[in-house]
Amino acid sequence: MNFPTNVFSKNATFDGALSIAGIKATTLAKEFSTPLFVIDEDDFRSRALAWKSALEKHFGAQAGHVYYASKAFISVEVAKWINEIGIGLDVCTGGELAVGLAAGFPADRIEVHGNNKSEAEITAAIAAGCATIVLDSFHEIERVNRIAGAHNVIQKVLLRLTPGVEAHTHESISTAHEDVKFGFSIASGAAWKAVEEVEAAPHLRLAGIHSHIGSQIFVADGFEVAATRLIEFLARFRDHFNRELPELDLGGGYGIAYLADESTMDPDQMMANLAAIVKSQCAAHDLVVPTVSIEPGRAIVGPSTTTLYEVGTTKVVTLENGANRRYISVDGGMSDNIRPSLYQAEYLAIVANRESTESTRDSRVVGKHCESGDIIIRSIELPGDVDAGDLLAVPATGAYGRSMASNYNHMVRPAVIAVKSGTARVIVRRETVADLLSLEVVESPRTLS
Amino acid sequence: MNFPTNVFSKNATFDGALSIAGIKATTLAKEFSTPLFVIDEDDFRSRALAWKSALEKHFGAQAGHVYYASKAFISVEVAKWINEIGIGLDVCTGGELAVGLAAGFPADRIEVHGNNKSEAEITAAIAAGCATIVLDSFHEIERVNRIAGAHNVIQKVLLRLTPGVEAHTHESISTAHEDVKFGFSIASGAAWKAVEEVEAAPHLRLAGIHSHIGSQIFVADGFEVAATRLIEFLARFRDHFNRELPELDLGGGYGIAYLADESTMDPDQMMANLAAIVKSQCAAHDLVVPTVSIEPGRAIVGPSTTTLYEVGTTKVVTLENGANRRYISVDGGMSDNIRPSLYQAEYLAIVANRESTESTRDSRVVGKHCESGDIIIRSIELPGDVDAGDLLAVPATGAYGRSMASNYNHMVRPAVIAVKSGTARVIVRRETVADLLSLEVVESPRTLS
Repeated sequence: MNFPTNVFSKNATFDGALSIAGIKATTLAKEFSTPLFVIDEDDFRSRALAWKSALEKHFGAQAGHVYYASKAFISVEVAKWINEIGIGLDVCTGGELAVGLAAGFPADRIEVHGNNKSEAEITAAIAAGCATIVLDSFHEIERVNRIAGAHNVIQKVLLRLTPGVEAHTHESISTAHEDVKFGFSIASGAAWKAVEEVEAAPHLRLAGIHSHIGSQIFVADGFEVAATRLIEFLARFRDHFNRELPELDLGGGYGIAYLADESTMDPDQMMANLAAIVKSQCAAHDLVVPTVSIEPGRAIVGPSTTTLYEVGTTKVVTLENGANRRYISVDGGMSDNIRPSLYQAEYLAIVANRESTESTRDSRVVGKHCESGDIIIRSIELPGDVDAGDLLAVPATGAYGRSMASNYNHMVRPAVIAVKSGTARVIVRRETVADLLSLEVVESPRTLS
Repeated sequence: MNFPTNVFSKNATFDGALSIAGIKATTLAKEFSTPLFVIDEDDFRSRALAWKSALEKHFGAQAGHVYYASKAFISVEVAKWINEIGIGLDVCTGGELAVGLAAGFPADRIEVHGNNKSEAEITAAIAAGCATIVLDSFHEIERVNRIAGAHNVIQKVLLRLTPGVEAHTHESISTAHEDVKFGFSIASGAAWKAVEEVEAAPHLRLAGIHSHIGSQIFVADGFEVAATRLIEFLARFRDHFNRELPELDLGGGYGIAYLADESTMDPDQMMANLAAIVKSQCAAHDLVVPTVSIEPGRAIVGPSTTTLYEVGTTKVVTLENGANRRYISVDGGMSDNIRPSLYQAEYLAIVANRESTESTRDSRVVGKHCESGDIIIRSIELPGDVDAGDLLAVPATGAYGRSMASNYNHMVRPAVIAVKSGTARVIVRRETVADLLSLEVVESPRTLS
């Protein structure tokens, strides 16, 4: 078999069967059961470090933070790794903040996002001392100023701006053209009005601006347009207020490989591109280069993780055109990976427990939910002898797999295990039916009106 | 305001503000917090009873069971209601079965579905004494026969057949054309081969056949084609084996109203249609009319439930065509209702806490997740003065809302409360951040190979 190393984590090998960090997939399945998320700890750390190194290499003293985007996947253990590596944490709800704090993550490297932060979430962030809150609406300017005042602090803030860029990506994950819920539009004047309000707010200190143009992006042109417009905006600020804003956060969205013919974006090359754009635009406006931060999430955790499934049933159907398709049903499905159904995302799979010499056939990998759309891989060539009991490995499932998982059909969500140098440990345990039943309560009816 | 009674549950009223079962939405939000699923217990029971009555009216002595499809939404309390009403329970995983058993649901009214039942799930179903297992693949014929043998029982089974019908619905929820993971194809010969295998299996008793053609269906023609082909198949069985199969399960998929100009399918009319089709086809083949069962899920729970959200922020953006769109951000989102993102499903919303006299404007209702696709309602006319603190009510969220909910962005899943005659009680409690953190474990690495 041609093992697709570009899609698997760096310590995944195939020698008659799949191993990750020196442990056979069959051993992992036996020890921890399936479905199972296997995170290659060294791969995760290497990628996080690569983004940090690339940012520092190309921005030098102007390198800000790599903020890991929690929404892709966060757990207490992963937050500890991020802290050890010395990068920052991007959270966008009180729940994500709670995970960071439970890990002892230093609040001075936490950045708080979200288009609709509640009063409770803002209060928690300020009480914890989170370094940066990214403001997303006029309501939030008032709220954060008021709550910071109540805590007797001056809160450092960025403004999330909408630079009017439509990245070449799925609509759901493209976030900076005008017709989105996020940010203040530069074109409409909302961004400038927000600057004026923040400048007038006694408990806010405007440190800079932020944009995030989308996800799973492979070409730098969207970042170039966004950076150009943001730096024009910084120049306008300087011209009006006679001082320069010191921070620029260019968000994340760096694409990764899901299929054998795709490539994961190279941090060094991407940071070289960004630095060239930022430096030339700052020079053009006679601005000091600000401190630049970025927010990769998927680009760190996505490739680090492989899902292991056990095949339960197979079935051949005859299509209208007379061709056959084989359905391979695994023991998970859209509850542990909604991306194929939600975004028509494509994945690959390999047989993980053995090497087959059978010729391949067109196969569809499906889950066990009561729904036709419960498809993991719509069409893939897999060996003709795949059968019940085989293990399938689906790589690059670290981002938005476990984090978007559901209990649809009362399925329990898989465990996440970390593997490293021949060792394995659970970092997020598998749910049990008892966990699900623990939400059931018996209450007496209360009369209300 | 024109209150859209066709979409809200039967005890929802609007008199200057929304009330459900005599309790103001504002009271519910205050008592139980938002987002909140509010299930109108009397509405749920009425709909379940209406399907039961319609089945019995039109099929008479040949009425089998109305099996409530758990996947739409199940909880211990709801399973108790279903039991009290005297209808059956359709489960398709061990988790759904566990909820039924926790509710003391009689196993002789439980039907077990699923395209990939595990050995453990089959064992649990047989050990519990579930009346009916619907076989979906050749692997399962062997497994169920073997496990039934080990338990020394003869298990009653149905065969799920694929009659080759493409219902007029979203691909993901259309389940009986040929290119699906479910069932044995009649056209390909797989169905007949399955009959022969089941007949030869000593621990299986073939009682009949089943098909489910899809979801959210409003026209009877798909059911007509499916029933015609299934009854032809029953005739073929009779001709070959010289006995008649006593049971026919025609599945569910009955559509409900989500928008003001839509109608929920009428049980009486639908059962009248089905009975006419079944009786005429049986007569044509000189068959005794079998016992007919159906499996509504959404049609019972969907309209019974309303989601209450609180507005957190609003924002106006200028579109490329110069028009304005207002974004209204609520305190939930795609984590409590994935259907708009997943199926492009449409919902309506009303302002629940007051009656506005402002003219309406084009609005988009979005959630608080870090994702542009986090949209509840893509475009709706809502009063121009909707602002932070207002309550929005989204009706018809009972099916596939809480059941497909996730913890995306570490958001906790909402509570489900049941209201009835001026009383309210929690039936599924709101999650807490502590619940989420309870899955985090600290394990020492173990050496494996």
